[in-house]
Amino acid sequence: MSRNQDKLSIIPLGGVGEIGKNMFVFQYKDEIVVVDAGLKFPDEEMLGIDIVIPDYTYLIENKDKIKGLVITHGHEDHIGGVPYLLKNFSSLPIYGTKLTLGLVGNKLKEHQLSETAQLNVVNSTAKIELGKHFEIEFFHVNHSIPDATGLIIKTPEGIIVHSGDFKFDQTPVDGKVTNYQKLAELGNQNVIALLVDSTNAERPGITLSERSVGIAIDEAFRSAQQRIIVATFASNVHRLQQVIESAVKFERKVTVVGRSMINVVQIAMELGYLHVPDGVLVDIDEIDKLPGDEIVILSTGSQGEPMSALSRMARGAHRKVEVLPGDTVILAATPIPGNEKLVSKTIDLLFKCGASVTYRSVSGVHVSGHGSQEELKLMMNLVKPKHVIPIHGEYRMMRELSNIAEQVGITEEHVIKMEIGDVVEFSQGTGRITGKVPSGNVLIDGLGIGDVGNIVLRDRKLLSQDGILVVVVTLSKKDGSVLSGPDIVSRGFVYVRESEKLLEEANKVVADTLSKMNADKMSDWSSVKTNVKESLGKFLFERTRRKPMILPIIMEV
Amino acid sequence: MSRNQDKLSIIPLGGVGEIGKNMFVFQYKDEIVVVDAGLKFPDEEMLGIDIVIPDYTYLIENKDKIKGLVITHGHEDHIGGVPYLLKNFSSLPIYGTKLTLGLVGNKLKEHQLSETAQLNVVNSTAKIELGKHFEIEFFHVNHSIPDATGLIIKTPEGIIVHSGDFKFDQTPVDGKVTNYQKLAELGNQNVIALLVDSTNAERPGITLSERSVGIAIDEAFRSAQQRIIVATFASNVHRLQQVIESAVKFERKVTVVGRSMINVVQIAMELGYLHVPDGVLVDIDEIDKLPGDEIVILSTGSQGEPMSALSRMARGAHRKVEVLPGDTVILAATPIPGNEKLVSKTIDLLFKCGASVTYRSVSGVHVSGHGSQEELKLMMNLVKPKHVIPIHGEYRMMRELSNIAEQVGITEEHVIKMEIGDVVEFSQGTGRITGKVPSGNVLIDGLGIGDVGNIVLRDRKLLSQDGILVVVVTLSKKDGSVLSGPDIVSRGFVYVRESEKLLEEANKVVADTLSKMNADKMSDWSSVKTNVKESLGKFLFERTRRKPMILPIIMEV
Repeated sequence: MSRNQDKLSIIPLGGVGEIGKNMFVFQYKDEIVVVDAGLKFPDEEMLGIDIVIPDYTYLIENKDKIKGLVITHGHEDHIGGVPYLLKNFSSLPIYGTKLTLGLVGNKLKEHQLSETAQLNVVNSTAKIELGKHFEIEFFHVNHSIPDATGLIIKTPEGIIVHSGDFKFDQTPVDGKVTNYQKLAELGNQNVIALLVDSTNAERPGITLSERSVGIAIDEAFRSAQQRIIVATFASNVHRLQQVIESAVKFERKVTVVGRSMINVVQIAMELGYLHVPDGVLVDIDEIDKLPGDEIVILSTGSQGEPMSALSRMARGAHRKVEVLPGDTVILAATPIPGNEKLVSKTIDLLFKCGASVTYRSVSGVHVSGHGSQEELKLMMNLVKPKHVIPIHGEYRMMRELSNIAEQVGITEEHVIKMEIGDVVEFSQGTGRITGKVPSGNVLIDGLGIGDVGNIVLRDRKLLSQDGILVVVVTLSKKDGSVLSGPDIVSRGFVYVRESEKLLEEANKVVADTLSKMNADKMSDWSSVKTNVKESLGKFLFERTRRKPMILPIIMEV
Repeated sequence: MSRNQDKLSIIPLGGVGEIGKNMFVFQYKDEIVVVDAGLKFPDEEMLGIDIVIPDYTYLIENKDKIKGLVITHGHEDHIGGVPYLLKNFSSLPIYGTKLTLGLVGNKLKEHQLSETAQLNVVNSTAKIELGKHFEIEFFHVNHSIPDATGLIIKTPEGIIVHSGDFKFDQTPVDGKVTNYQKLAELGNQNVIALLVDSTNAERPGITLSERSVGIAIDEAFRSAQQRIIVATFASNVHRLQQVIESAVKFERKVTVVGRSMINVVQIAMELGYLHVPDGVLVDIDEIDKLPGDEIVILSTGSQGEPMSALSRMARGAHRKVEVLPGDTVILAATPIPGNEKLVSKTIDLLFKCGASVTYRSVSGVHVSGHGSQEELKLMMNLVKPKHVIPIHGEYRMMRELSNIAEQVGITEEHVIKMEIGDVVEFSQGTGRITGKVPSGNVLIDGLGIGDVGNIVLRDRKLLSQDGILVVVVTLSKKDGSVLSGPDIVSRGFVYVRESEKLLEEANKVVADTLSKMNADKMSDWSSVKTNVKESLGKFLFERTRRKPMILPIIMEV
């Protein structure tokens, strides 16, 4: 793509039209700053895929221009791609607040990348210069993880503000309100564009304070008779803090289960974000010695993930904890879209164990970390940007954000709705989409990065629907006659025992097909295979209305 | 199972602990009455399965006792199993109201079972006698389909009331309110048990009247500038009626798209449940001749089903209709749990087409067909049963119903929470669970009924995650030496082109494994296969962290 390198451009490599794998590229002349490097969890149709990251091609092609990676906060959709990015740019300097980089560091340790990584901890009012043209100033925002920030990106073309993931919490758990003064000042300056978190653009009003969750948790603790199990997002340290405080208030000890919960509690305590009085935390092996009404179990699994601690407990498959009649389970989370059925299933199992389960959103044990419509309006009114760029939302959310912008006087032509890979260029303060760079999803399956694509996924889908029949036949090199087979082996198709007759007939169909082919044609393996596929596929569809994958294999002796 | 055949028993073969495949067996001495014969749609883990029906074993074993099948209303989870049931009991007399049996008849036609079926249309106040011991009286209830009923089942042991799927709509679209007089009379009689729809037991208050949807649809019609597309559940004939009425009011013509919508509209018109003034319906091919503001398209696809008319339109893949900028789309439905992401995707696509989309539940274009907590209390207070049996709900809903029962004075020991297959017996007016009959899920895949079970599903799951590698080798009959191969063919594992080296190495691993085996061991095919699986599996996991299915096949010449 040829474009005017003198201009300021913004290129989302992920995080628009989706909630996940946030990654924005800011470019001016020969300098690039990258903001966030997230991952996304796979959609249902991405069978067998573990995680999804952005296509880094544009960055790899412009490797020498990259001055740094700035991270807004420590959620997976903002940091989960860092190890994969560092595989291409091992010496890339990374900037972020203490907890954010604490979580990044933990991730890099797991990937054995800690040695070479250049992590630069900044505080949430820091200004850093990247290259000759970029000055980045952090500002504190409230979100469902501590130490979250937005960014003021100063460039020769003007100021860009990136909201980060934010809500305006007037009574945050750690007492740190948003720096309204800083945002209000921006309103008097030349802010050419505001990138805004669109997640809750469909929700009227404001999002409740995280502190309201503390009140609801207290309430639930007050009426609990036996043990209390609280499941929530591990990274929501403010919520963990409130659980700890409720535990102290009601004289209960706390034990932590689930790998990510154990990790985050440890990191957050070490770095001073989670404050636990001495003697409150106890080892999981200690809890059997305590009476039920002195115990809190803090657990992963609020999304009903089948392998999580809570699901295992609910199924009676956890090594250390079983859910007992009289226990109280607090699900301090709402299901992420797609997880509704898993969560319902877990709740049902917990009830069957005899537990009392607090789970409805009306019970107040969860609030969102993203601002609703009135907060989005306030953000725009504070910053007074010339353009608004909706980010961090599916299409309908980003679209709703443009309606909201209109309500505060930012007309439609000043709302820039981007797709992944779009390049928006700013010239004399005006931005417009001028091109596209290579971009898309890269699928990660086990150790493989990008080695699973559409053909493999299509095959997995086919295999998952009706299974496979492998048809093997050994032919003579001399005259093409059948020396052995056809043998048919099926998997995922039918119960073999109950369908012996069907498979026998299938075998006969293949044998007939082979015997009908002229000997001279048997050397044309591709037409042998096509004939077998067609005749067998037709037979099976007629008999079963199924279309298993048919895989003919010819051996030659 | 040996049990006292003199008693009255109730046996759910489906429809408790789940929403779907409703089927209740009522038995007294040597007589059985079956209520409903529904299907369920498969869970995500039931890969490739089309539908799920109850295990009919108990009915087949007691074939001669069955006096009839009574159907409460025409939803799939109450009638979808009828064709499969009739395959075992072709002459089973079936009783239901006109629209209900109209929909059953349509289904039987598709299965070529109409000839032998014995459909007996009754009106919604009918009394029928089945066998010597059962008298069944229908009563009208409000639900999201017309002609829905509950049942009063009179037996020598006392009266059982089956609520059907119901809400108390005080202003129903067809003017037919619930027969409160009949229900109230029951309160003075000996009702030993009330089976109650638990679907909305978690919802406080009352469910809004279907008529409120008509007002919201009118509102949406009023502001529409161009064409209007309404997607809703085909079977919600009252809602279809309201769409027709809005169309007439705003002087628009209506065309119908989507197979099930076309079917239901036709049946409901024929039977007098849907009233469409002459000239309002137009053929789909006519709409291009009309201006946009004179058109309504009534469509399937409110659940985002990928093959439905609405999804096709949204993707630009419908043969006849494309969504145009300025069109208004009304999604008069909320997503059924599990469909949230499909629905969101469809909404995003519709917005991208430039349509205005009305979809939030707050917009009032959908209300539930099931009664909320206050309605459930009213039902219990009207009927005053000795026992309550929660039905038509997942576990947590049925559990909540027992809390509700307690609030109206029905104590916990009088709430009988059943699982599928449980037998509850009544003796001198008191019911308790005394045993279990064969029961469970029967999976239907294509033409196969029950030929896909856990092993096949486990294989499909495995195949869907990491694909399959087929390893074929031809051995000599004489000395067990390798004559051809090993050949490896993979599907759904990796892009073969990009992973040639990996597959070459894999081939070498297998060849090494074979060459290390002593010739005399080669005749033991099972250990050859085990060795190949183990060595290749280990190699692949080390290299890729994936566990594809490995299928060794040995040919002998």
